[in-house]
Amino acid sequence: MRIKLNSYLFVTFIIIFNSCNKEKEAVAIKQPFAIVLHGGAGTILKKNMSPEQEKTYHAVLEKAINTGYSIIESGGSSLKAVQKTINILEDSPLFNAGKGAVFDSQGKNKMDASIMDGKTLNTGAVAGVSNIKNPINAARMVMDSTKHVLLSGKGAEIFAQQHQIKFESDKYFYTERAYNSWKNVRDREKNKQYSVISKQYSVNNSQLAVIQNSKFKIQNLETTNHFGTVGVVALDKNGNIAAGTSTGGLTYKKYGRIGDSPIIGAGTYANNNTCGVSCTGIGEYYIRTLAAKEISSLIEYKKLTAKEAAKEVIHNQIAKLGGLGGIIVLDKNGNIAWDFNTKGMYRAYRKSNGDKKIEFFEMIKDSI
Amino acid sequence: MRIKLNSYLFVTFIIIFNSCNKEKEAVAIKQPFAIVLHGGAGTILKKNMSPEQEKTYHAVLEKAINTGYSIIESGGSSLKAVQKTINILEDSPLFNAGKGAVFDSQGKNKMDASIMDGKTLNTGAVAGVSNIKNPINAARMVMDSTKHVLLSGKGAEIFAQQHQIKFESDKYFYTERAYNSWKNVRDREKNKQYSVISKQYSVNNSQLAVIQNSKFKIQNLETTNHFGTVGVVALDKNGNIAAGTSTGGLTYKKYGRIGDSPIIGAGTYANNNTCGVSCTGIGEYYIRTLAAKEISSLIEYKKLTAKEAAKEVIHNQIAKLGGLGGIIVLDKNGNIAWDFNTKGMYRAYRKSNGDKKIEFFEMIKDSI
Repeated sequence: MRIKLNSYLFVTFIIIFNSCNKEKEAVAIKQPFAIVLHGGAGTILKKNMSPEQEKTYHAVLEKAINTGYSIIESGGSSLKAVQKTINILEDSPLFNAGKGAVFDSQGKNKMDASIMDGKTLNTGAVAGVSNIKNPINAARMVMDSTKHVLLSGKGAEIFAQQHQIKFESDKYFYTERAYNSWKNVRDREKNKQYSVISKQYSVNNSQLAVIQNSKFKIQNLETTNHFGTVGVVALDKNGNIAAGTSTGGLTYKKYGRIGDSPIIGAGTYANNNTCGVSCTGIGEYYIRTLAAKEISSLIEYKKLTAKEAAKEVIHNQIAKLGGLGGIIVLDKNGNIAWDFNTKGMYRAYRKSNGDKKIEFFEMIKDSI
Repeated sequence: MRIKLNSYLFVTFIIIFNSCNKEKEAVAIKQPFAIVLHGGAGTILKKNMSPEQEKTYHAVLEKAINTGYSIIESGGSSLKAVQKTINILEDSPLFNAGKGAVFDSQGKNKMDASIMDGKTLNTGAVAGVSNIKNPINAARMVMDSTKHVLLSGKGAEIFAQQHQIKFESDKYFYTERAYNSWKNVRDREKNKQYSVISKQYSVNNSQLAVIQNSKFKIQNLETTNHFGTVGVVALDKNGNIAAGTSTGGLTYKKYGRIGDSPIIGAGTYANNNTCGVSCTGIGEYYIRTLAAKEISSLIEYKKLTAKEAAKEVIHNQIAKLGGLGGIIVLDKNGNIAWDFNTKGMYRAYRKSNGDKKIEFFEMIKDSI
């Protein structure tokens, strides 16, 4: 009788022990989730920012990253997290996207945005649109409700109107920062001071030489203290990656110039097999290098880590052409990388393992 | 005395022998040069073409390929060869580019073009331009005389006017083919017959299912018998690769839709380290897969041949999404590949080793 009882207790113990282990395994193979954002790269120096300014930027970035994080934490899709996080940055006057978008040569906002779903490789983008409050919402609508990928100009605005995308008056888009930036370029257009690029962007001499000798001269940089494009990449609980980017482009841009932000593979890319990417900087260099897709290819075909791929694209491929800017990467395993060859980049991330970071200034070695 | 003479003759013989060998080596390491073009993919069936029609297409493709070939043969640049070859196709009413460009929903030509220099990775493109006789010339001008890569719409037209790019009246761009195609879509827009896609494009059932279930429905295909985009890739005597693409886009396109032709990495790509690429088909799929850049990455990072890379992108990556079209590739060693998942593609190539081919219809196994 006692033997029976003992063996019974023993079997029960084994069952409980196994089920505990199974639970542990389940926790171990749980899908990590994460979100990372940028608010533009450029000359962002502590000495040029008051504690109040730092607080203001920090507050918006924190609100944005937490908004996106809560969406994926509560089981929402990475697409929704990317869109809603970008909305917060678009609605802030601090960044060159949505409300804070810079003016083109006609003194008008001509905004670009794109979003990509890494699960289906579906994507939507708008280029050169005016008065749309949240261009990323128009990009999402293109993805969800058309057979197309990229709509542009007046046509894209008509599409947005027909799909109940919210519009705002020119007055809504007026910010002193954007106006002063525009006025400065207008006044200086005739007499370009390329040397200022080196001062403002701390470009080394060889880079400056490339820029000065390049056909791709960047007369606008001198007047803006950062590019201000915004971008977000998220990985949700289902392992789906999404990426999005929204921008006002370059101050005083002419001739319907389109940068990299609405160009899939240049400013934005997402693929569940590899990673999601969003870029900020002088768009032409990101188009010529296909920066966002290149990161994905380096991870998939050259087996580089997200960090190695970001370094290769920013500090080798783009820098070699004389390009300036930054990039954020989030891979399918939840690894985050950011890099830039300017003096700073507004950036933040939050991961399911509890890691969280908000930074503005130069990279602290191995901070990520 | 005789010994001296003999040894003198022997030395002379050795010198001549060596110099001959050196010459042989020089010939052996001579840079190959080549040019390849496409005039659009689609349902191109022998049974649907009269001998006269075949002759007409053959004549234009032959004139085009020979024009580009003579330029590189006489030491001209691949960029010039690409531009001048595309000009001949743009000036023909047979293709959906330049004079033969299809009409958008407003009954207007909205043309796209891009060109890329594989040596510098410089590139220029225009999107959604009207009345420009040769959009590829405007793209070249963007590359040569601005810091930008992509100009669009009215702004791009103003830029072209300021740079003495030739314009033509709407009348010049009228072709019966484009008008009928436009009229058919307008009449059928309300009642879409997706099944026609399978008839016209001989898509297999699984592909058709993808297309029918896809958000990216292609209501226009039923009315056009081929896409007609034109593209050229050339490799010159200096080992420089250039690629260019020009198109009128999709018949009855709306909302300022931009396809892959002006998007670097999607419809066009060139890199001296790998290859040059031009694409034709439903642009959205080429944007989502970054088809042209992907070919280059597969060659550079996965060490695929041009032929293997073309097959992977067309028959795996694009077909998997339900995409239709074709691609031409010319690698840095002068190897040419072309592939398509439609019933035919207008295509031609000519190489410095004497090889030359002009084809319209289904691929003959290992024809290339």
